[in-house]
Amino acid sequence: MADHIYKKIELVGSSPEGIEKAVENALARAAKTIRNMRWFEVLETRGHIEDGRIGHWQVTICVGFTLDED
Amino acid sequence: MADHIYKKIELVGSSPEGIEKAVENALARAAKTIRNMRWFEVLETRGHIEDGRIGHWQVTICVGFTLDED
Amino acid sequence: MADHIYKKIELVGSSPEGIEKAVENALARAAKTIRNMRWFEVLETRGHIEDGRIGHWQVTICVGFTLDED
Amino acid sequence: MADHIYKKIELVGSSPEGIEKAVENALARAAKTIRNMRWFEVLETRGHIEDGRIGHWQVTICVGFTLDED
Amino acid sequence: MADHIYKKIELVGSSPEGIEKAVENALARAAKTIRNMRWFEVLETRGHIEDGRIGHWQVTICVGFTLDED
Amino acid sequence: MADHIYKKIELVGSSPEGIEKAVENALARAAKTIRNMRWFEVLETRGHIEDGRIGHWQVTICVGFTLDED
Amino acid sequence: MADHIYKKIELVGSSPEGIEKAVENALARAAKTIRNMRWFEVLETRGHIEDGRIGHWQVTICVGFTLDED
Amino acid sequence: MADHIYKKIELVGSSPEGIEKAVENALARAAKTIRNMRWFEVLETRGHIEDGRIGHWQVTICVGFTLDED
Amino acid sequence: MADHIYKKIELVGSSPEGIEKAVENALARAAKTIRNMRWFEVLETRGHIEDGRIGHWQVTICVGFTLDED
Amino acid sequence: MADHIYKKIELVGSSPEGIEKAVENALARAAKTIRNMRWFEVLETRGHIEDGRIGHWQVTICVGFTLDED
Amino acid sequence: MADHIYKKIELVGSSPEGIEKAVENALARAAKTIRNMRWFEVLETRGHIEDGRIGHWQVTICVGFTLDED
Amino acid sequence: MADHIYKKIELVGSSPEGIEKAVENALARAAKTIRNMRWFEVLETRGHIEDGRIGHWQVTICVGFTLDED
Repeated sequence: MADHIYKKIELVGSSPEGIEKAVENALARAAKTIRNMRWFEVLETRGHIEDGRIGHWQVTICVGFTLDED
Repeated sequence: MADHIYKKIELVGSSPEGIEKAVENALARAAKTIRNMRWFEVLETRGHIEDGRIGHWQVTICVGFTLDED
Repeated sequence: MADHIYKKIELVGSSPEGIEKAVENALARAAKTIRNMRWFEVLETRGHIEDGRIGHWQVTICVGFTLDED
Repeated sequence: MADHIYKKIELVGSSPEGIEKAVENALARAAKTIRNMRWFEVLETRGHIEDGRIGHWQVTICVGFTLDED
Repeated sequence: MADHIYKKIELVGSSPEGIEKAVENALARAAKTIRNMRWFEVLETRGHIEDGRIGHWQVTICVGFTLDED
Repeated sequence: MADHIYKKIELVGSSPEGIEKAVENALARAAKTIRNMRWFEVLETRGHIEDGRIGHWQVTICVGFTLDED
Repeated sequence: MADHIYKKIELVGSSPEGIEKAVENALARAAKTIRNMRWFEVLETRGHIEDGRIGHWQVTICVGFTLDED
Repeated sequence: MADHIYKKIELVGSSPEGIEKAVENALARAAKTIRNMRWFEVLETRGHIEDGRIGHWQVTICVGFTLDED
Repeated sequence: MADHIYKKIELVGSSPEGIEKAVENALARAAKTIRNMRWFEVLETRGHIEDGRIGHWQVTICVGFTLDED
Repeated sequence: MADHIYKKIELVGSSPEGIEKAVENALARAAKTIRNMRWFEVLETRGHIEDGRIGHWQVTICVGFTLDED
Repeated sequence: MADHIYKKIELVGSSPEGIEKAVENALARAAKTIRNMRWFEVLETRGHIEDGRIGHWQVTICVGFTLDED
Repeated sequence: MADHIYKKIELVGSSPEGIEKAVENALARAAKTIRNMRWFEVLETRGHIEDGRIGHWQVTICVGFTLDED
């Protein structure tokens, strides 16, 4: 594992259900075009308010994936 | 939307259930006196420990609301 | 001036023209209800994009005003 | 205590005597209009210089108080 | 409470279920050797990705406990 | 809007004229290949000095755009 | 001194008197079990408010001590 | 360029006109005594308020200049 | 150089030899697909430990490259 | 005051007595060569430990002074 | 690996040779009492100067090790 | 040592060889005009890329030296 090279990208996922689901949604979308995702970090947690209640959560994550698998 | 002015205030909500519920509680209390809340950001997530287990979560949020709707 | 007490509040101003104008708009709105504003600090500069161009700027400022003038 | 909601505000107190006294001055002024203040955090410590010596200290604090006592 | 002394340690808990459960796991392990834990703060939220989905969450917390109870 | 997924990229725009123009230049270049840009944040403002005067401004921005419009 | 190894721990001291005394209290407690403490850094200064006045100060410090003296 | 050594100094420029002009004023003053200034970074943007409007902007910059040109 | 536009990406390089070599490895991999890389910044330095010794270093860098050379 | 230019320098003062005295000592030394000092900010508060007790405090400050008074 | 619990501690290693060697020295000392160290992060890099040259490097690291191997 | 006053300055050293050498170069240049340098801290590590490889490293350091030795 010592010689892996990773790239990190930043995504914002959202969900009306909660933080974990917003991250899952971002990863599900990213998985369509990126193979070999390895880890994520939560950078920012926000949300939109509608009628005084949480409309949906918006979670910014950074995702690391290997560039050297080919 | 280009000419809206927002004010941001900082609240701490708490709940024994989890992070999302602590934020909901803070917003529910704020909604009693503030109209036109638009978004929130999570600034800090903490909790109190009772007998070695999570007693309740304490989540600090910043809430933005429009000042110009009147 | 040694015994002044200040309060600081956080505002978001916006303008299609630029950063300085967004700050001016926030201060003009605040001046309707707050007397004795003394200084501001720019905390965050953002903007909305419409059709690939800047729609409007959104600048978050912190404003300090004296509480002890009465 | 699990269901308390707190609001946090930012104040700047000043004093020619020192840091602790500047915080006390800010709290004394805030206590005139805010009930139920619970804790503070020091955010920034500055001072004005007059004739090469400290004229007065200026300490920015954040104060948390309960919103739910009524 | 004015004369308590606290020590803070940093732990990383993990769980396939979510953020709250990862914190609970860290506290459950710490409770085996530390008495008098009082509060925690979430410092970092990360996770491992397996096959394009969240494998498990990893949450870094800081735990404060009293040193002066003996 | 609750289920949008965004990607964020980091750009540096420059201009001899000023901060706003440097951001505009970065967005104009990005618009050639990215559809659906929604917002930007200013991360860093720098500049080059030539003969003791500002040669050009260099502004680092982060741009968010939707991934889910297709 | 070039080959010393230090460990750093984080403590919270408190005192009704002020910041310096809160640090002293933390060090006095730590000195019961740790030899060879060399320096400290103040990380956070907070306080509890009782009846609108400072009840006690709470100062978080990081203490460095040598591991290699044996 | 690989062996240049730079020194960085911190300046605060001000102007009633705007951010860019405040930076220009700081550089113009510095150019009286410093040769070989190469770049600047904006560290902080503040302003003074007079009668509810921006009196002047105050921009803190860091300026890098070469030490090795002699 | 006043009108260049740069894009910045984030990479993690690794090496058992040290920090400089980990950065070199990341750049060598990136050079396969990116032309016109101009500068990098080290964002984070970490490492994996195997049998109580450094197994390999992992260095996160941000790389800037010109978008406008075509 | 709108056209003042300030320079900021960083000093570390120390004192066995406390934080305020360490700042005073730094300013007293600086006043020997710098005229027109206007304000300071505390950047870092540390201390040396001797025999388990505070030997002396070390406080890093940033001092602003006017460049344009001549 | 989903249910590991880690503890993180902070160490300062030093060496006249360089950054990598200072980290190695800190890990070698820690390995005498801690089993199952897994990773480290470099938090701060400093050094002492003797006669205008680097006397030794001082590198602060955070080390993570598993608590659950027993 | 309790009453020393230090000044801190910021330098950028560069070298094609690596981080340690870039710091050495900055200190060697500073030693020509500054006596009594005591310590440094690494603030930022960057580098220029030439033909897809590291051209030279650029390391920003802060250097502390005593003001009170005369």
